[in-house]
Amino acid sequence: MKRLAIDPDTALAHVRGAIADVETDNIALMAEKAGSIGDVIRLWYGESDVVTPEPIRRAAKESLDRGETFYVPQMAGHPALAAELATYQSELHGLSLGIDRSTVTPGGMQAVHLALSLMLEPGANAVYVEPQWPNIRHSIHLTGAEARPVALDLVDGRWSLDLDRLFDACDARTRAIVFSTPSNPCGWCASHDELEALVDFSRRTGIWIVSDEMYSRLARTGRAAPSLLQHAGDEDLALCINGFSKAWAMTGWRVGWLNHPASVAPAFRAVTQYVNSGTSPFVQAGALAALQHGEEYALAMRDRCMAGLDAVYERLGRSNSIRLPEMPEGGMYAFFPLAPEGEDARQACLDLVSKARVGLAPGGMFGKSTINCVRMCVARDPEVVAEACDRLLAAL
Amino acid sequence: MKRLAIDPDTALAHVRGAIADVETDNIALMAEKAGSIGDVIRLWYGESDVVTPEPIRRAAKESLDRGETFYVPQMAGHPALAAELATYQSELHGLSLGIDRSTVTPGGMQAVHLALSLMLEPGANAVYVEPQWPNIRHSIHLTGAEARPVALDLVDGRWSLDLDRLFDACDARTRAIVFSTPSNPCGWCASHDELEALVDFSRRTGIWIVSDEMYSRLARTGRAAPSLLQHAGDEDLALCINGFSKAWAMTGWRVGWLNHPASVAPAFRAVTQYVNSGTSPFVQAGALAALQHGEEYALAMRDRCMAGLDAVYERLGRSNSIRLPEMPEGGMYAFFPLAPEGEDARQACLDLVSKARVGLAPGGMFGKSTINCVRMCVARDPEVVAEACDRLLAAL
Repeated sequence: MKRLAIDPDTALAHVRGAIADVETDNIALMAEKAGSIGDVIRLWYGESDVVTPEPIRRAAKESLDRGETFYVPQMAGHPALAAELATYQSELHGLSLGIDRSTVTPGGMQAVHLALSLMLEPGANAVYVEPQWPNIRHSIHLTGAEARPVALDLVDGRWSLDLDRLFDACDARTRAIVFSTPSNPCGWCASHDELEALVDFSRRTGIWIVSDEMYSRLARTGRAAPSLLQHAGDEDLALCINGFSKAWAMTGWRVGWLNHPASVAPAFRAVTQYVNSGTSPFVQAGALAALQHGEEYALAMRDRCMAGLDAVYERLGRSNSIRLPEMPEGGMYAFFPLAPEGEDARQACLDLVSKARVGLAPGGMFGKSTINCVRMCVARDPEVVAEACDRLLAAL
Repeated sequence: MKRLAIDPDTALAHVRGAIADVETDNIALMAEKAGSIGDVIRLWYGESDVVTPEPIRRAAKESLDRGETFYVPQMAGHPALAAELATYQSELHGLSLGIDRSTVTPGGMQAVHLALSLMLEPGANAVYVEPQWPNIRHSIHLTGAEARPVALDLVDGRWSLDLDRLFDACDARTRAIVFSTPSNPCGWCASHDELEALVDFSRRTGIWIVSDEMYSRLARTGRAAPSLLQHAGDEDLALCINGFSKAWAMTGWRVGWLNHPASVAPAFRAVTQYVNSGTSPFVQAGALAALQHGEEYALAMRDRCMAGLDAVYERLGRSNSIRLPEMPEGGMYAFFPLAPEGEDARQACLDLVSKARVGLAPGGMFGKSTINCVRMCVARDPEVVAEACDRLLAAL
């Protein structure tokens, strides 16, 4: 993995070890390299082609017009948004979530950072499920803790989690188990039984369970994928990452939230104060509008992603050279082997940018066990996704 | 200092030490307590009474109208804002600052967090100048490092920094010296000689110098207070915190920036990716408008703060019970003893909320050496500031 090139005569030689060691080979850099090539269908990122719906943008503009440009003093989030989050999640998951179970964050990434900062430090470790969005392991690494992957198995085209192997990877220094459900990149979803087992394990061991549920609303069946919130009691060691980016086409807004035990709310208020001092009031006004008036958009985004997946499976399913796993249960990605097992698909991804004018993320970024895979964002006009598939098939 | 109350039967008992120990007694909580009392002139916070100027708000609204609601892929900031920051700071400070010397951050607080995260970790320490904005020591504390205060001296009403004492407080585990100039809360400004001496010390010891210059534009004389950027070479271990909040009345926007050596830019790009994934494009559009068209507003804010200080010094200067230090050289605060030396002004602050209907921040929050002081924000309509002084005088 690519890391910083450190010239000992520069200031960079004076940073702490976890920064000096940080991996820099992220998708953003890959996209940058391909910047000059024209007519590329760019399916690297986890981002749709949909501009944030007008009513959400209007809410932010009206907030600006009202002069809401001052600090939000409540570090857990604007009271109206905090209340709506409790109502929305309670109704969505069929539970009763207290208002003190959420903290608004400037983006889902910051929610990950705050969650991991709660328990990780040098000497500790976090066990995480692979393949996984690389920012998770990088964010663990930056705390000074060790990031320990446990790979999902791909058996007969089906991703599955071996809970025994996951639990066996934990030791006395393990402070957290981290996963995403629906998984970024592979669309695996934790089942209710698996979530229940994770909570049981946490109760026995005092290990935190961190569930990244950013793609929760993009589930093929039901209004949302199963949530850790449906299994963890008020004071279980359970944290859920969430945000507005994916379901409401608000990637650029940088607003998310974190669900946590009520007892931890004062700690997150303090940490929020000293790490980011809160989220913009007019951005929170947009987020509030998404919850209050944005259900149709979340459903449309779900449909867009599922139509995109259908297009991929319909086109690439015809190919003899690509063996697709079972249809993902959720998320906004197709994730499949492009190179023979054990071979790195990275060069193929780079070649496809110029040969097929399609941008895919190499699977090695998501974990060693999937270096032969590629990730393809499907949250686009299904015709564009189909066109990308046709280009791939022609080039392969 | 107030800390979290930890019930061993709750999830809060399972957080890392630096979180469990975090001080929670911040100004926000004090303001919250007084929330129900009517007609209070609230001078706790470092925030003006000015709504963000209309052209800046318009720029953000136009960005939203253009559909700029996607990720900004450049982790150092939108290219237009990054370029303008280099031009603006080069012109302001009479130097030639490369575009790779700045990273845009979601707020000045996040700039502090990212700066301190670059070199601090458990086992290290940071020496900081007191009195100091409490978030600085809390942010040091959250890294797991020790926060070591060195107090300014108040001699004949003049705040001054004893550099020998500051340097003597450093040891082999010291990774950074941190200060704010103009100082929040006391308005002390580092002189060019002092900044030069700090850079010299850094060159000899490999200790980072972190200068919080958030109030740089609110200097009584000149367009800006002396900046560390004017003394540190491209690869000196120098970091400057800055932001749009104070000079352009943009506290609620949550956008700031960090100046750093060019060699560290790739590290900050990676850290930005894994901590916050960047700042909103439409917020950056507002920030760009502030730099391009907002000079008159920054100057007006400076004048507002200086008029506020003049009002305080004119009114409270008449009192026999209050001994004001020399007029601050910059910033948006009056900071002065309200209780006898060694006595805590905290109770007086609480009493004054109901007795005088004026909200002041107790000096103990800014350091042990100033527990008898209070901080008063003056970035308000000077008539309101004068009224607050009259109320104080009547109550004392």
